[in-house]
Amino acid sequence: MPRPSLREEVVAAAQDQFHRRGYNGCGVKDVTDAAGLPKGSFYSYFSSKEEMALETLDRYGIGREFGRLKTGDASPLARLRAHFVFLGEDVQRTGVDYGCMLGNFASDTATHSPVLREAVAGGFSRWINEVTDVLREAVELGELPDSQDVGLLARVLVRSWEGTLLHAKVTGGTRPMADFFAGVFEPLLGLGTGSPVKG
Amino acid sequence: MPRPSLREEVVAAAQDQFHRRGYNGCGVKDVTDAAGLPKGSFYSYFSSKEEMALETLDRYGIGREFGRLKTGDASPLARLRAHFVFLGEDVQRTGVDYGCMLGNFASDTATHSPVLREAVAGGFSRWINEVTDVLREAVELGELPDSQDVGLLARVLVRSWEGTLLHAKVTGGTRPMADFFAGVFEPLLGLGTGSPVKG
Repeated sequence: MPRPSLREEVVAAAQDQFHRRGYNGCGVKDVTDAAGLPKGSFYSYFSSKEEMALETLDRYGIGREFGRLKTGDASPLARLRAHFVFLGEDVQRTGVDYGCMLGNFASDTATHSPVLREAVAGGFSRWINEVTDVLREAVELGELPDSQDVGLLARVLVRSWEGTLLHAKVTGGTRPMADFFAGVFEPLLGLGTGSPVKG
Repeated sequence: MPRPSLREEVVAAAQDQFHRRGYNGCGVKDVTDAAGLPKGSFYSYFSSKEEMALETLDRYGIGREFGRLKTGDASPLARLRAHFVFLGEDVQRTGVDYGCMLGNFASDTATHSPVLREAVAGGFSRWINEVTDVLREAVELGELPDSQDVGLLARVLVRSWEGTLLHAKVTGGTRPMADFFAGVFEPLLGLGTGSPVKG
């Protein structure tokens, strides 16, 4: 019978390999090699590379800690800022060359299975919805004007963030993330330097 | 002796395959299959997959028609808008699921050769510099305020565009591009609806 602890080792290796290399850049053997297991053992735990990719994508989504967007004493825009700060710190911990797993998978979309493509699209939708919700809360509390199209703003923030991490993969360093706050987040949300949301 | 016309067929197939699948999603055999040639013929024209990828990336850059940013009677911001409109129309012609070749290659960076990574970084730098130049011209002509950090603005416009095409690969359709103009380009450049730059 397959051992649960070994399954966890395969999943951990898969998360790392898929995140760093994207869907096309990573094969089953890369994962089992990274886990120090024979390739054949993979099929005790997963029926396919696609099934494993779906699980790593789910776990990656959980790791984004979207719950923190909804809770805490900070204002909605301060929570939204903290969300992107968290994502930026997370990718620096993992390695800027890893980028965003969702974005990496999105880039490989043309050669995906329809199921995985759907999962990537769903990941983006959920994220955009979470950001829309917190922006709507900001409008209700007067942090943003009523006239703000919160759906549009959420979509462009998420996409700008993805472009930020994509470029950071190539350049290294943290300037793209700093630029995102100074050049996208603050101007689009009407926040100037010294705003209370900055802290 | 290798025939130049066959080399062109290999390059055309490589441009299509690399653009659609990215660097990791495309092998030499995919290219020669697409060109209807035996795999071995590839090595009459290129020494490696990497060398072929560099050539396709160069040609992709030429196809961006950066010269149009500098010339014509339109104002600098109108030319900049036309640049992104052109890029959006171009990706719709090619297929939204192809995305941006530069972005696709950037996503695969972690498993690139250093030479190819450098070429991708250089492609971004040249693009950002072209956009910075036209923004600087806009400041000189009073289309943007003196206080505008044109380098920052160029970097975030280019990255937002990349995130736009990345998401469009997954969702299909043209909404991400429309969002870019309404939610990023116009607000960051201080352009409202009805601005002369829109036309």
